[in-house]
Amino acid sequence: MPRYRLSLEYDGGPFVGWQRQDSGLGVQAVLEDSIRNLCGEDALVYGAGRTDSGVHATGQIAHVDITKEFTADKLRDALNYHVRPHPVAVIDAQIVGEDFHARFSATKRAYLYRILNRRPQPVLDDGRVWWVAVSLDAKAMHDAAQSLVGHHDFTTFRATGCQSDSPVKTLDRLDVSRYGDEIHLIVEARSFLHHQVRNFAGSLKLVGEGKWRRRDLERALAAKDRAAGGPTAPPDGLYLTRVDYDAPAD
Amino acid sequence: MPRYRLSLEYDGGPFVGWQRQDSGLGVQAVLEDSIRNLCGEDALVYGAGRTDSGVHATGQIAHVDITKEFTADKLRDALNYHVRPHPVAVIDAQIVGEDFHARFSATKRAYLYRILNRRPQPVLDDGRVWWVAVSLDAKAMHDAAQSLVGHHDFTTFRATGCQSDSPVKTLDRLDVSRYGDEIHLIVEARSFLHHQVRNFAGSLKLVGEGKWRRRDLERALAAKDRAAGGPTAPPDGLYLTRVDYDAPAD
Repeated sequence: MPRYRLSLEYDGGPFVGWQRQDSGLGVQAVLEDSIRNLCGEDALVYGAGRTDSGVHATGQIAHVDITKEFTADKLRDALNYHVRPHPVAVIDAQIVGEDFHARFSATKRAYLYRILNRRPQPVLDDGRVWWVAVSLDAKAMHDAAQSLVGHHDFTTFRATGCQSDSPVKTLDRLDVSRYGDEIHLIVEARSFLHHQVRNFAGSLKLVGEGKWRRRDLERALAAKDRAAGGPTAPPDGLYLTRVDYDAPAD
Repeated sequence: MPRYRLSLEYDGGPFVGWQRQDSGLGVQAVLEDSIRNLCGEDALVYGAGRTDSGVHATGQIAHVDITKEFTADKLRDALNYHVRPHPVAVIDAQIVGEDFHARFSATKRAYLYRILNRRPQPVLDDGRVWWVAVSLDAKAMHDAAQSLVGHHDFTTFRATGCQSDSPVKTLDRLDVSRYGDEIHLIVEARSFLHHQVRNFAGSLKLVGEGKWRRRDLERALAAKDRAAGGPTAPPDGLYLTRVDYDAPAD
């Protein structure tokens, strides 16, 4: 039975998140329903990152086993027909080996968090950014963010309902840069705790507006207590942009 | 009576265009209604470019005379409160002299036309780009586009209902560049004919897919006949990005 690797873009706004849930429509359910409509199979679609409600993706990776054989391009085009009118697109499809698992084979996940930092409200990017009207110092945010990079207990930035076995993770990258009115956070790690990037964004916003200094962020991390962290930033600005895998063995 | 210069961003999707019309809501009407709600005055708002239905702006410029005196920042913030929930924002406001006219003082207008050139449909940029699934050669488009730059009779690229006195215009710039899956047209001139940029985009798409060569575009221009040009590209990809003015005399 062929295994297909799918690269996905979606607008998180109308969804309850990646996972199929009784409370509303998940991206996973859109894809599984599309596969059923395409070939009558009840396939399970596994995603690399279980994005929350409202969180977007430009590079989510999923895999699915389907009995019927398609060329990869044919499957991509057929799914893009069947997912409509939902805001999901299969950007790329590939046939992969059975040892490829979108979630468990992933070696790195990359997120972008977009802040629109201007007094006027968002218009063209409404729902796509976190609007912060007070002026933020991106350089101070970047400097403080470096204290989060590395191997740490991230309990302070972990949602209370997080199901991860351990709060200890290795953060590979947290870069903060300004592009005109926008501030971008680029965040990379093998895996993340629930709400970790949004909790980073909420705390770094406090640094950007001068309410916190780098040492306050360091103290918050050391407290290992969610109550010591800043607020959780909204999902609107968050994008799963890339998932890395080791090259398959020859 | 103070004159205010407004820099505007809007999503053209829900509007009949810039101008106030009986057939639906115009951006001009949103601003004039907001000013009436703010200070009870029936002011006229003049825009630099009369964008069509569905055409966006990131740098539309307008001016308005209001009897009541505001600081520029106060007017910006107050209008941004009153325009809601419509997708319009005043990015900047300035107090200017009575000799400033948003439309008649403009020396250059710049438009961006965005093409999403990939097989999968647009998702995050739905309504913000022209989706062209067939692969386009951006270099060939750019090369051919240079034959349109300069002083020409642009009848071939002029909507039949265009109210301009003359079809002869000077096109200062028409650059075509690829950025990943996107192709951007940057178009600059003192003034434009109705649908001129969208008609450029529709003809250059024919060049990009190899149906036309540069000489076909040159023949179309020389024909001075709308029927010789390519189709009109949709408004979704078009943005009024900048309007230039001479520096005020000292």
